Amino acid sequence: MEFFFNPATIALVGATASKTKGGYAILKNLVWGFRGEIYPVNPGYSEIEGVPCYPSIKAIPGAVDLAILFIPAATVPACVEECAAKGIRGVIIESGGFAESGSEGQRLQESLKEIRKKTGIRIWGPNCMGLVDPLKRHYFSFMNPGAVKDGLMPGPVSLIVQSGMLSAAFLLDIMSNGLTGISKACSIGNKVDVDECDLLEFLLEDPQTEAIALYLESFTDGRRFIDLCCRSRKPIVILKGGKSKKGAEAAMSHTASLAGNHRIARNVLAQAGVVEAGDFKQMIDLCRTLAMVPPRPVDRPGRVAILTFSGGAGIVSADLIEGKPLLVADLAEKTKEALKAYFPPWMPVSNPVDLWPAMEVHGRSKMYSASVKAVLPDPGVDAILIHAAAWDASAMDLKGIADESEAAGKPVFIWFIGKRDTISGYQAEALELRIPAFVELSRAIECMAAVFRKSAPCGSGDRPAVTTPAALSPRLQKVVDAAAGPMDEYVSKQILAACGVPVVEEEIVGSTDEAKDAAARLGFPVVMKGVLPGGVHKTELGLVQLGVANRTASVKTYRALKKKMGGKGRVLLQRQVSGRVELMAGILRDPQFGACVMLGVGGVMAELIDDAVFAMAPLTRKSALELIDRLRSQKLLQGFRGGPPVDRVDLADILIGLGNLALAIPRIREIDVNPILVTAEGLIAVDATVVLDQHESSLLFRAITR
Amino acid sequence: MEFFFNPATIALVGATASKTKGGYAILKNLVWGFRGEIYPVNPGYSEIEGVPCYPSIKAIPGAVDLAILFIPAATVPACVEECAAKGIRGVIIESGGFAESGSEGQRLQESLKEIRKKTGIRIWGPNCMGLVDPLKRHYFSFMNPGAVKDGLMPGPVSLIVQSGMLSAAFLLDIMSNGLTGISKACSIGNKVDVDECDLLEFLLEDPQTEAIALYLESFTDGRRFIDLCCRSRKPIVILKGGKSKKGAEAAMSHTASLAGNHRIARNVLAQAGVVEAGDFKQMIDLCRTLAMVPPRPVDRPGRVAILTFSGGAGIVSADLIEGKPLLVADLAEKTKEALKAYFPPWMPVSNPVDLWPAMEVHGRSKMYSASVKAVLPDPGVDAILIHAAAWDASAMDLKGIADESEAAGKPVFIWFIGKRDTISGYQAEALELRIPAFVELSRAIECMAAVFRKSAPCGSGDRPAVTTPAALSPRLQKVVDAAAGPMDEYVSKQILAACGVPVVEEEIVGSTDEAKDAAARLGFPVVMKGVLPGGVHKTELGLVQLGVANRTASVKTYRALKKKMGGKGRVLLQRQVSGRVELMAGILRDPQFGACVMLGVGGVMAELIDDAVFAMAPLTRKSALELIDRLRSQKLLQGFRGGPPVDRVDLADILIGLGNLALAIPRIREIDVNPILVTAEGLIAVDATVVLDQHESSLLFRAITR
Repeated sequence: MEFFFNPATIALVGATASKTKGGYAILKNLVWGFRGEIYPVNPGYSEIEGVPCYPSIKAIPGAVDLAILFIPAATVPACVEECAAKGIRGVIIESGGFAESGSEGQRLQESLKEIRKKTGIRIWGPNCMGLVDPLKRHYFSFMNPGAVKDGLMPGPVSLIVQSGMLSAAFLLDIMSNGLTGISKACSIGNKVDVDECDLLEFLLEDPQTEAIALYLESFTDGRRFIDLCCRSRKPIVILKGGKSKKGAEAAMSHTASLAGNHRIARNVLAQAGVVEAGDFKQMIDLCRTLAMVPPRPVDRPGRVAILTFSGGAGIVSADLIEGKPLLVADLAEKTKEALKAYFPPWMPVSNPVDLWPAMEVHGRSKMYSASVKAVLPDPGVDAILIHAAAWDASAMDLKGIADESEAAGKPVFIWFIGKRDTISGYQAEALELRIPAFVELSRAIECMAAVFRKSAPCGSGDRPAVTTPAALSPRLQKVVDAAAGPMDEYVSKQILAACGVPVVEEEIVGSTDEAKDAAARLGFPVVMKGVLPGGVHKTELGLVQLGVANRTASVKTYRALKKKMGGKGRVLLQRQVSGRVELMAGILRDPQFGACVMLGVGGVMAELIDDAVFAMAPLTRKSALELIDRLRSQKLLQGFRGGPPVDRVDLADILIGLGNLALAIPRIREIDVNPILVTAEGLIAVDATVVLDQHESSLLFRAITR
Repeated sequence: MEFFFNPATIALVGATASKTKGGYAILKNLVWGFRGEIYPVNPGYSEIEGVPCYPSIKAIPGAVDLAILFIPAATVPACVEECAAKGIRGVIIESGGFAESGSEGQRLQESLKEIRKKTGIRIWGPNCMGLVDPLKRHYFSFMNPGAVKDGLMPGPVSLIVQSGMLSAAFLLDIMSNGLTGISKACSIGNKVDVDECDLLEFLLEDPQTEAIALYLESFTDGRRFIDLCCRSRKPIVILKGGKSKKGAEAAMSHTASLAGNHRIARNVLAQAGVVEAGDFKQMIDLCRTLAMVPPRPVDRPGRVAILTFSGGAGIVSADLIEGKPLLVADLAEKTKEALKAYFPPWMPVSNPVDLWPAMEVHGRSKMYSASVKAVLPDPGVDAILIHAAAWDASAMDLKGIADESEAAGKPVFIWFIGKRDTISGYQAEALELRIPAFVELSRAIECMAAVFRKSAPCGSGDRPAVTTPAALSPRLQKVVDAAAGPMDEYVSKQILAACGVPVVEEEIVGSTDEAKDAAARLGFPVVMKGVLPGGVHKTELGLVQLGVANRTASVKTYRALKKKMGGKGRVLLQRQVSGRVELMAGILRDPQFGACVMLGVGGVMAELIDDAVFAMAPLTRKSALELIDRLRSQKLLQGFRGGPPVDRVDLADILIGLGNLALAIPRIREIDVNPILVTAEGLIAVDATVVLDQHESSLLFRAITR
């Protein structure tokens, strides 16, 4: 990717002297900022803006590292082939008119894919704003040259933005608020070749990038994306477009995106420790914060001391902190004593710390500094949130506070309120000192919460790359190989048992005698079921009989079930187990993330409580336990209504087993284990369905799973 | 209250020539803006800033309408008495040092209450910033005179702010963003007399006020507050401080507030149609929006057309709309045809409407105007959200769009992105045209959602002022009069039956013979319970026997229950009813809102699903039905797992009856009806407890209930 970011020579195809055109803007931006050789290409000019112009790529004398194309879509494929022939390693196609614009454009985009495959040339775009790197003054983009000269502030944040128009607006917004230093902004458009994974991989290694924000409408390869995120030690913030049904529909018609099921995406992103944003500016605020204050993963909420000039603002801060992974810190006695020295005698010291009465006596400047000094060493405090009205800010020793913060290794955040222009100055000053400062209180607290998130279970590369495949017995393997579609309950549970899922004791019986004997072995009462091939709705068909109490009843039931099935199915006898709590688990193949494991509330409760969590397979013990923690209905797991609590390690092992099974047997399309009963003897899967892929498409799924 | 807002003459006690003091700032502000007579009072001066100064209130020659006090707390009570003696009708006490500052201050505050009671003088404050009215240039406040001259923009929004420091910071913030026109800003501090209700009542009648925002840490009289909100035709937005446990603790030490149970407050505010904000700027944004675009209560979500320059922004808008009472509108065929005329042929028209390809052909200005014109008449569109990058905004015919919007009677909102200074100008321009404009997309959508909320069931004064008291039989009335604390199940249900709640058929039996006979009458199986006075945990004591199947069993059970109760209690026989769904309902006395009705998920489900909603009694049919609609677990009501659906009107009548009962018998402290079974024959209350107040405190609760 180096030739995209650090080319020595650039050809610009579509350069023009016509000042309203994009081809002129790109050239101006290159001339202004790029230090290497520039070769404008346009048969209509011999020079533009004093730079010699070439009639074609071929005609350029020397070697070219990178070509930027801004020409009509129809002429792009031939030009890319020419670039490849010239030995150019990468092209950035900024022209529109491809997949986003109907069937002809779709065809052109396909031909680009072919050229990529045939020649090996890397293609960035089409339909994008290209690359901007203010640090190196690389403006490989048709952004307004005037705006470019105003300049983006160079800094630690890199952006990957799928939408072209947005990236421009984004950058102008960022430019004008002056709070976010940018390293690289990459607008990736239709992603015919270079995609978010390629760029993320590059940026993770880029020494100038400390945090990465992405606006994406689809994941080209969700599995690779998550693997990269798991390996990342840099904070990653994502705004995903197309989360809602309507949004996804719009995404389809926009960049021809596969929006997927965001519920799974949300879970998988959380699993990888990615911070999810809900809106554009929030994304930037989160990212600039995490670039200043890297995440401090804690296994408890971050404990915040609030230093305020206003009791009311302190109260609202405490309200906003609730429901986030933050706590209003309980101050140590020693801390309170230190603060009391400044407080009027009638005033109790508590957190939020209302500094106003002390400020009236000792002045604002002194009280901000003194209270920071008093509170920072408190072992029960992880971070400080200062409130400052603009008139207080002028008196605040920001530098001193920043030094204290750094020495203590605890971040200080500031919320400013008051005159906007005054505040802008203080925010910029705070930025220099790595103190995140905000004008909206809720945003300050959201950003602080992102710093103190739980550590991602797969973080920093501890995700297992390889997994032990579940071993099926040769007999079972044969059954699986021969079958397709939903397997019956009995076979399904045999497959599960092979990967370590505890299943209910059960036997298939072929006669009334076998039924009697099996029932006696299992112990009365038993459950008897009619098992039909591919039949997944046993209850609705009246094929489930609970509480079969004795031999006579077992014979009667055997006959009744046989009759109902019209001689087609088999009869299954199960030990009858009981448990108040029913869970469900399973696996599915997500089109973006491949094999995913699901855990949810099962049985009857599932109809009322929509509570299910997902993770990408394979799972480690840690990520499986974390998955269990993400279930909302924790009460169900903790010994509900006097029942036994769930053994979380056992449950984790079931989830790990399911994930491994999915990876080992790519022909498994989905598995539903429902219910898993929580019994005094532990977890027992009582019913399950394994769905196999039809043979012809199994290769496809194998590809998705990798 | 007129003398607070429009005095002809003002005395300022604590006026001083010392320029760093509040007493100087107030005087400067008065001299600058107030057109009536000003009487500075301070024995140390004969004049200040050229205004003659008086040694005392008494010494002022003419009549005085209003006194503003900014003197040490200890000297305030005597001064207020002097004001009363002089015939002054109101004082604004801006000094601190009262209940917020320990026991001595508390005592001073109590003495102010006494003076208020004794003399009738109205007291605003203490510990507040007073009143600001930029329209009349009334700055009755110690705000920085320099800032005051920069000036607040006069406009339709009035504020009531409990916290003093915050109101100042608020106003400076509002001043500097230049987007919110202010009518009156009232800082109310410790609310010793004048409270949010007094001010709200005044502002509801104030012709200069079109929308009201409140920051409150407590409701002085929640019941009156809600009644006022119900009568209001002006939109009201509230930010409540002290919602969380920690926030409430902080509120206690801040303005000595009773923060109450915010869950009840949240429900009651929704019942009254009040918009709740979560943060300061959000509150102002909501209020300025509702002042421009009054709420349009609809019984369905507001349907939004999104006109955008960026597909990506359209997608994110659709995502943000989901989960709000808004919908992405389905455009009519006619509308699509109209848009198609501008679109390139390959481009399908859908909502969000991506204007970019059409803009490339027809220009930005034309496409904004043309698309607004095409979309506004669509009967399926209630509002338009325009996205504009700053470079597009310059081309937008804002005036024309505003005219179209007004003619169609449908609001247009704009989200601007790009250069901040450019945008500020456009926002101000849009404000003039009553087009709400925002820089954060999520905020634009939040504010739009506030416009299209469901109509409040009690809105516009249709809340019943009087209610039919439930009539108890003389015998039952006697039992109630004699009792205190929790009543037993049988008596409790008799009371409920008297107010129309359907209760299970049951009889108290005094012997085995009576038990046999009653059981036969009710029909086997029956439920038998041991009923102890005040005993509310029957199940835990083993006093509930379900499924008593025959006469013999009923005799046996009778004896067993009697034995367990040690001869103390009574035995109750009930018809055994069954239903899969269990609800609960009840009433409680909230310290802020008085008698409230509760509805929730009952029985076993209640342990897992925390779903309960509240409303202030009395309820109308409409507000009761709306209360039922607010329950999250609507699935339970719609015929859960093949069971019968809940008759909502029957349920509403139960809730109305409970509310009426609470108002008719003030000695009822709380009622718990749990479970109410949903049976094929309708709703049946199976267990209930009525808790009566101890006699000595009944007067107190009578007072709260009014």
